[in-house]
Amino acid sequence: MAKKQISELQELRLKFKPELPLTLQLGAANIKVIKGKPTSCAKKFEGEVKKMFANTYGLPEVKFAKGKNDLAKRKITLGVVLSGGQAAGGHNVIAGLFDGLKKANPKNALLGFLNGPAGIIDNKVKVIDVKIIDEYRNTGGFDLICSGRTKIETPEQFEAAKNTLIANKVNALVVVGGDDSNTNAALIAEYLKQQNLDICVIGVPKTIDGDLKNEYIETSFGFDTATKIYAELAGNIARDINSARKYWHFIRLMGRSASHITLEVAFKTQPNIVLVGEEVLAKKMTLAQVVNYMTDIISKRAAEGKNFGLALLPEGLIEFIPEMKELISALNDLLSNPTPSFSTVDNNPAAAKTEDVENGLIEKFAYVQSQLPKNLSDLFKSLPENIAAQLLLDRDPHGNVLVSQIETEKLLVEMIAARLAELKKAKKFNGKFASITHFFGYEGRCGFPSNFDANYTYALGYNAAVLALNNLTGYISSVRNLIKQPKQWICGGIPLTMMLNIEKRHGSQKAVIAKALVDLNGKPFKALCALRKDWAFNDNYLVSGPIQFFGPASITDITTKTLQYEYGKGAK
Amino acid sequence: MAKKQISELQELRLKFKPELPLTLQLGAANIKVIKGKPTSCAKKFEGEVKKMFANTYGLPEVKFAKGKNDLAKRKITLGVVLSGGQAAGGHNVIAGLFDGLKKANPKNALLGFLNGPAGIIDNKVKVIDVKIIDEYRNTGGFDLICSGRTKIETPEQFEAAKNTLIANKVNALVVVGGDDSNTNAALIAEYLKQQNLDICVIGVPKTIDGDLKNEYIETSFGFDTATKIYAELAGNIARDINSARKYWHFIRLMGRSASHITLEVAFKTQPNIVLVGEEVLAKKMTLAQVVNYMTDIISKRAAEGKNFGLALLPEGLIEFIPEMKELISALNDLLSNPTPSFSTVDNNPAAAKTEDVENGLIEKFAYVQSQLPKNLSDLFKSLPENIAAQLLLDRDPHGNVLVSQIETEKLLVEMIAARLAELKKAKKFNGKFASITHFFGYEGRCGFPSNFDANYTYALGYNAAVLALNNLTGYISSVRNLIKQPKQWICGGIPLTMMLNIEKRHGSQKAVIAKALVDLNGKPFKALCALRKDWAFNDNYLVSGPIQFFGPASITDITTKTLQYEYGKGAK
Repeated sequence: MAKKQISELQELRLKFKPELPLTLQLGAANIKVIKGKPTSCAKKFEGEVKKMFANTYGLPEVKFAKGKNDLAKRKITLGVVLSGGQAAGGHNVIAGLFDGLKKANPKNALLGFLNGPAGIIDNKVKVIDVKIIDEYRNTGGFDLICSGRTKIETPEQFEAAKNTLIANKVNALVVVGGDDSNTNAALIAEYLKQQNLDICVIGVPKTIDGDLKNEYIETSFGFDTATKIYAELAGNIARDINSARKYWHFIRLMGRSASHITLEVAFKTQPNIVLVGEEVLAKKMTLAQVVNYMTDIISKRAAEGKNFGLALLPEGLIEFIPEMKELISALNDLLSNPTPSFSTVDNNPAAAKTEDVENGLIEKFAYVQSQLPKNLSDLFKSLPENIAAQLLLDRDPHGNVLVSQIETEKLLVEMIAARLAELKKAKKFNGKFASITHFFGYEGRCGFPSNFDANYTYALGYNAAVLALNNLTGYISSVRNLIKQPKQWICGGIPLTMMLNIEKRHGSQKAVIAKALVDLNGKPFKALCALRKDWAFNDNYLVSGPIQFFGPASITDITTKTLQYEYGKGAK
Repeated sequence: MAKKQISELQELRLKFKPELPLTLQLGAANIKVIKGKPTSCAKKFEGEVKKMFANTYGLPEVKFAKGKNDLAKRKITLGVVLSGGQAAGGHNVIAGLFDGLKKANPKNALLGFLNGPAGIIDNKVKVIDVKIIDEYRNTGGFDLICSGRTKIETPEQFEAAKNTLIANKVNALVVVGGDDSNTNAALIAEYLKQQNLDICVIGVPKTIDGDLKNEYIETSFGFDTATKIYAELAGNIARDINSARKYWHFIRLMGRSASHITLEVAFKTQPNIVLVGEEVLAKKMTLAQVVNYMTDIISKRAAEGKNFGLALLPEGLIEFIPEMKELISALNDLLSNPTPSFSTVDNNPAAAKTEDVENGLIEKFAYVQSQLPKNLSDLFKSLPENIAAQLLLDRDPHGNVLVSQIETEKLLVEMIAARLAELKKAKKFNGKFASITHFFGYEGRCGFPSNFDANYTYALGYNAAVLALNNLTGYISSVRNLIKQPKQWICGGIPLTMMLNIEKRHGSQKAVIAKALVDLNGKPFKALCALRKDWAFNDNYLVSGPIQFFGPASITDITTKTLQYEYGKGAK
């Protein structure tokens, strides 16, 4: 096979050398482990978590310092798996693992499990050598070993995973993933201990959504790159808005469970409207209230002759609106047990012709209206027709509404237009409203990692190798002090059990790492509150431009404004 | 008012010094004009164009060379106007004009007409001084003086424009725009000559679509930046596709009249499917044939276990499909004279509730079906319901279908899904088809201009100033040899009349600069033909990454692959 072509930039990025924290630069054989006091999870979950994690609960936090370490010189085989959605820097985690292992002992081996945890269950393995890794350094994507969403959950899956690890003589497994995947890592670590196996399991915090964070994990990798890409696009659009001065642009940004992405992109672009799902939920806002909040800003701007603007909203907005969540849940209940009279178009809406769908729709519409309680029936009737149709037609194999496919930005635009039409009739609005909508998500998951993410992921991987070489299990790779230069970053490990909560899922008690939502008492959100009124009316759009890999550190190496605020530095 | 905040990158970009072609570096007072032979337009239009442009037809092409030039030292006032959609580099055209004027004579003045040609009609003017221009160098957008789509067409408008130019003592007007705007520039130049006014008019070729080009205009500005931004996004998505390996992504790219953008982005990303509107038109492909062409590649890839891929299509695809163009035209005729029975939802579809729309829709659907000829009625029935509904409901104030709002990528996806379902039934397809769609347009119009566009627009502006200082009217600023370093670029002017064709528009003969469509006999399209079969099945996605402004020239200064092919260099 001919050698794959690569882009000019990729050729250059392959040569980038991430900067390691000073401690890691010593190499595992010269790093000693300093154990802190035993740790615990949140008090109210302690009893339950302790029971579930009899072998791994209460481990000490560990830090690294300079010091001879012979244990770290032993030969090991380490397996790595990527779990869940793509995030920029996954390949550098693997490169960091590789370099960390090889520096400690050139005989150490690195195996990649293919296509996510399914690759562990099915024993699909790729040996990662220097030739392969050198083709992937500082690149985006997960294509080196690919990823998957399978979790290791059933006793049979745990058994199969164990057999794969034994068959491949794996001494340590590194799981790169989000909250769910790291919860899974904790469970595997506990299971292997239970089985008296000396195989350690280490997690690495990944997710562009930024919702895997706490006092020990300052940010998950991929968030910096993704938000920089979205901010590039939103900033370009802001400049277009300010040039054309006749359109409102509504941008929905990836991030279903938390609004961190929207918040960060807002700091980087200073839009006229920002919706934060967590605030909408806390204030128990209705859909109409959300629409009115936006309409109010739009009509006030129009009164100043500004019939244009920029609005940002999080992908998950609709589920943060309590009544919408209720409606979706009611529709799921109503439609998951199909009534006999419905035609077959549901199963393949794409193949349906206009007449069929309309007949099916009207039928279904009437059925649903007759069954919903009054408040939800009114809400459903208030929705624009295409959205109502989507709620009825687009459903997953279990009959559930495909929430992620609801184009909330279009829903809002139609409802705002309707509201403005009412205001116009009442002579309370005399402007124009022309809108353009966007959704940005996939564009930001696989870009070349920013220098920050390239450095951070390389350090996370290298650090995970050091944890593994010290035979520490049930830890998450922790690299902190990220507001500083990489040299000054602080490395170590945090017990996964420390981050666990107990939640009821599908009727049973499960240990989970809780998603970190936007903290309404946190500094970033408070900064937004202080700024957004000014942004709404005194246009001051920022155009951050494309990620730069070369040039002054002021543009290549800075990380997120969210982190800057959290560190108490006003983003400038 | 507080000083506007700007991004870190913008601070740096303001300091970038574009590199001028060697000739222009001399300054207007040291550049002499070399006139060539008289020019002519295409033979078959000559009689008509000569009649319409009695005072400006047949001007010689001009080149610049080193030489004393006292004429260029006289004091002039130059007015500039931005016309049509945004394109990266507009501000640098103005900066180039400014610097070119000031170097020739510090007393020269530059005026900007606001909001496009309407600013000339209405005498809305902004004086551009060094303080203002220094805030806009190398930035994207048109916000310095904004743009507009008004054309100067009626006798009253010409009169008003003339009065504005006289009132502001303008010696030269520079019109920055696409084919229509440059046609308008030619008309204004002719009108002012007719009126015995010594005010010259110069055009500058702008459009991200890349469809204003010919042997004298190698590319229009903004095309390089826009295609680099779209390629960044498409490349990131390609890497995501290759990592997730379970989705087909369909990306529609801006460019309604021509498919240059799609072609260029294809060279930069190497997708599995590329649709070129001009080819679809030349082959008179039906919608079903387009769908089958795509379905064929999708099902062949599925047979190899690849249920994923990347498809690019141009915004204007639907109008390139002859039968769709016919259908849209028939619908425009049918619906622009509304029959009395229709409800009022048309005028405000956003405000309509589900039931109303459905009733209106069914009514309208039946009416249209009864009126269309058989072939179009069949075609209409074959469309997915949401698209059919859109064709009936979303119309402009004249009752015309809003073609630009048809989400062709979604139309194709639904029809492909339906076709694959048929194939599955016939046991000819055994794969999966999950799709995600995108439209990229506005993201690419106002980005920071690439180094190429920053240099090119600055040279175009500087060059236009030299033309104006030499009192040349009816020319377009021409900067050629763009494949080479800016120093080696060749500068001069081309008579606008030389580019004119005669077309029948709205029943009368009009002089127009014809849009340059993708040439099916040209080197870029032939290169695509040679490559696309390989791209379809042997995935070799390129990830070009974000535009870089710093670092090696191999990534910061290269221009489009289209230009490289046109110059006979295989894009590497």
